[in-house]
Amino acid sequence: MTIHHPSFGQIDDSRVILFDTTLRDGEQSPGFSMNLAEKLRMAEALADLGVDVIEAGFPVASRGDFESVHQIAQHVRGAVICALARSGGKNDIASAGEAIRPAERGRIHNFISTSPLHMKYKLRMEPETVLELITAGNTSARNFTDDVEWSAEDGSRTEPDFLCRCVEAAIKAGATTINIPDTVGYATPEDMERIFSMLRDRVPGADGVIFSAHNHNDLGLAVANTLASVRGGARQIECTINGIGERAGNAALEEIVMALRTRQDAMPFKTRVHSERLLKVSRMLSTITGFDVQPNKAIVGRNAFAHESGIHQDGVLKNAATYEIMTPESVGWSRSSLVLGKHSGRAAFRDKLATLGYGDLGDNQVNDAFARFKDLADHKKVVYDEDIVALVDDEVRDHARIRFQSIELTAGSRRPARAELTLEVDGEDRTASVTGNGPVDAAFTAIRAIFPHEATLSLYSVGAITEGSDAQARTTVRLEEGGKMVDGQGADADTVVSAVRAYVHALNKLLVKRTRAEPEDLATDVA
Amino acid sequence: MTIHHPSFGQIDDSRVILFDTTLRDGEQSPGFSMNLAEKLRMAEALADLGVDVIEAGFPVASRGDFESVHQIAQHVRGAVICALARSGGKNDIASAGEAIRPAERGRIHNFISTSPLHMKYKLRMEPETVLELITAGNTSARNFTDDVEWSAEDGSRTEPDFLCRCVEAAIKAGATTINIPDTVGYATPEDMERIFSMLRDRVPGADGVIFSAHNHNDLGLAVANTLASVRGGARQIECTINGIGERAGNAALEEIVMALRTRQDAMPFKTRVHSERLLKVSRMLSTITGFDVQPNKAIVGRNAFAHESGIHQDGVLKNAATYEIMTPESVGWSRSSLVLGKHSGRAAFRDKLATLGYGDLGDNQVNDAFARFKDLADHKKVVYDEDIVALVDDEVRDHARIRFQSIELTAGSRRPARAELTLEVDGEDRTASVTGNGPVDAAFTAIRAIFPHEATLSLYSVGAITEGSDAQARTTVRLEEGGKMVDGQGADADTVVSAVRAYVHALNKLLVKRTRAEPEDLATDVA
Repeated sequence: MTIHHPSFGQIDDSRVILFDTTLRDGEQSPGFSMNLAEKLRMAEALADLGVDVIEAGFPVASRGDFESVHQIAQHVRGAVICALARSGGKNDIASAGEAIRPAERGRIHNFISTSPLHMKYKLRMEPETVLELITAGNTSARNFTDDVEWSAEDGSRTEPDFLCRCVEAAIKAGATTINIPDTVGYATPEDMERIFSMLRDRVPGADGVIFSAHNHNDLGLAVANTLASVRGGARQIECTINGIGERAGNAALEEIVMALRTRQDAMPFKTRVHSERLLKVSRMLSTITGFDVQPNKAIVGRNAFAHESGIHQDGVLKNAATYEIMTPESVGWSRSSLVLGKHSGRAAFRDKLATLGYGDLGDNQVNDAFARFKDLADHKKVVYDEDIVALVDDEVRDHARIRFQSIELTAGSRRPARAELTLEVDGEDRTASVTGNGPVDAAFTAIRAIFPHEATLSLYSVGAITEGSDAQARTTVRLEEGGKMVDGQGADADTVVSAVRAYVHALNKLLVKRTRAEPEDLATDVA
Repeated sequence: MTIHHPSFGQIDDSRVILFDTTLRDGEQSPGFSMNLAEKLRMAEALADLGVDVIEAGFPVASRGDFESVHQIAQHVRGAVICALARSGGKNDIASAGEAIRPAERGRIHNFISTSPLHMKYKLRMEPETVLELITAGNTSARNFTDDVEWSAEDGSRTEPDFLCRCVEAAIKAGATTINIPDTVGYATPEDMERIFSMLRDRVPGADGVIFSAHNHNDLGLAVANTLASVRGGARQIECTINGIGERAGNAALEEIVMALRTRQDAMPFKTRVHSERLLKVSRMLSTITGFDVQPNKAIVGRNAFAHESGIHQDGVLKNAATYEIMTPESVGWSRSSLVLGKHSGRAAFRDKLATLGYGDLGDNQVNDAFARFKDLADHKKVVYDEDIVALVDDEVRDHARIRFQSIELTAGSRRPARAELTLEVDGEDRTASVTGNGPVDAAFTAIRAIFPHEATLSLYSVGAITEGSDAQARTTVRLEEGGKMVDGQGADADTVVSAVRAYVHALNKLLVKRTRAEPEDLATDVA
């Protein structure tokens, strides 16, 4: 079966349209607001990733929202640009229509609540009024574009007969995509499959439109509900990068894409996504919002392909398929990152040494180092690459051009902070004395005074420090320069020294990177 | 249908046994190692939460693991204490048996791989050898306890006929729980339901044992796979707090418990969990490991019940059920936390003022403050409670006993840091000049010198700082005293000043808390 779609032309039944709402539902969650430049950057990255539709915002909500959608419509090519509007909002449809006008292909997505609870308490409207607004909203939207989506807000909790009537009204009024959101994250996979099957069976005109799923993760079921929706007949998936969104967030784009790819046998559906760009886009979003995904986040978390236990590491080294159902490379990691800890075995340790450039050590050397590693692992929660390098070589980082030597600080709340910093650069000590906005800012300014560079500091974060034997501040500094991004790590009981070490580490990595021209180099950024 | 279980006696078909493996599979993930005291604390909390079985470790793996299991078996009451062992490991079963000896009720959980890939590449064994080891392992385990679990590692990728033979062998040798893990996170919900249905149909003796599910989240399906397993006949669920575990982690305990509770209509199964303790246990794990869950983590993330958009906030204020399928209180939050941002409307703003103690303001005052709030929200990504308090009242925190006045610092890598700190305590300035291990440590030591207290600092973390108009260091300090825990926040361009503000904030909250005797007070800790 094929269908004719106003933006995508003839599309067959195995094609799933990917609708990304990171910039709308995602941006709506507390702490995830983005400014115009950030939204443009994300939109470009999403188009480059291969999503089909980018929901760019809710133009009537604010001047800023309108401007973002308008700018994205103007500048981003390769994806349909979509604007949100209330079906019954006074200026919503006109505002959305105006915002998407410059787009190559533009969509208006109008919605209204259809569940008894929402109609009664939120809208305070009778069902018949809602039906009228559905007709009015979609008719009006079609004056601006042929690509019109309509959503039944709280659709999963809507009474089935009424839902059929609503969908029929939307189709008759010109909607070409029908979205049934599980707005509150209440549905089970069986619910979603049943709803879409029912609509396709019962609603006149259902065979001429695309059904769409939009699932929230309040019960941890968003991805499963989305896949069940596809089984029920949905052919558009609404999702976000890293699964951000209202409350517990939306279905995570990267998880859905990789579930479909990995389980083609059970789910023979295709998207246009370049999966090897997933990690890059995930990290871009983390950088922009300042929120990292948790280490065990599927696909893009830093432990997603990391095996600590001796048994698992041993298996992976013998045959990666024993514990990996997809390759790390297929989502943008350069290799499986074997993080070492107290559960790690000798085989994993030797493999780690090899990746760190110590593959030529003799058995005795490896055995000595392994014994010292086990001692260290008893005291440290995570053994980082640099700790291991230190174990086998006191002359760490021979190739580093810049080394931290010393810092002197005066600071306080009554006057600007002053840092006197000494770095060794290419074997020679250089000192700068500068003031800054607090001790860390002064220290970073001093680094730039000693070794001028163009890179911008895009992230500075200090890991949570818990009391215990290991009470060091662990700092991450991210530098970006001409599309290259590096993370540096530093650790010291003194937070400022830790920050300087991290910055210098990042800078040294950047200098190495400048001399190379590889497309992706995330391996060294893996903890 | 009821079943007789060696540890639980007669149990009926609606009962689901909750098996927590936070301390084994969870602890195995990079960065999540715990020491003995931390494991004991977690085990007590898990028993208190109402889990049925606590998998405490893998005794043969290391002396430390043995000791942890042994101590937990000795001290923790109310849950079965389980130890992991390889079915074919030389000393595994004896070590596990010895470790659980002091337990009220003890379980040995033995496992061996059964998939073609694992048998060939990891075990390098013939299937017949694996069958022999299953018999030997379970027989041997029964010498130590009547409560024996056996797992088919990589069970979801095991050839069905062979899986039946393995399960039959395990049951014959005395296993009372049969676990079929989706070790690599490859299964779909349909796969898991089918596997359990098949085993219950085909394996002799299947009606006398408990089947168990253990799902990994590599494709984002762990929770759905677990619920599908229950539908297929599994009556034990293996899971972890916050979903930690190897790679993308395990099914999250809190999500499964709340999915079952919220959807009793579709899934009429019961656990013994006190759901209102979920948040407390989640936070304890975060504190111990130093890893926070992401803001949009279901149930326990700080946005899980937060509504930013004007439309959603408006709906929640009219009737919480419009956007909330469970109450925040049912999982331990004191109330839905409405976080404000640029999308927030006037109704949410007024509601927030009321919760902050400004419910008696006149309309004009509210309107003025709302206008200033909108200005602020255009510049700050998140508007915190303290920002709002500042908007309506320049005399912030009138009740605070301790106020930050000034700090002078000298620090550096060549000598100890020295801080001269002045705090106002009960209206009177007090100054201390002390040295410490870096500027933050010196500053905190000075606070304790000025205002001695017993509370321990259990977390110090600086949020990720991205460049932009809002480049302040935002620090969280967590203090614990006699079972009370408070988080303080501080923000300043200067990281040390930010840290001092956060500490003083926490200390003031603790002083307030000392005078109250409430069981739970998380409301004020919600961002």
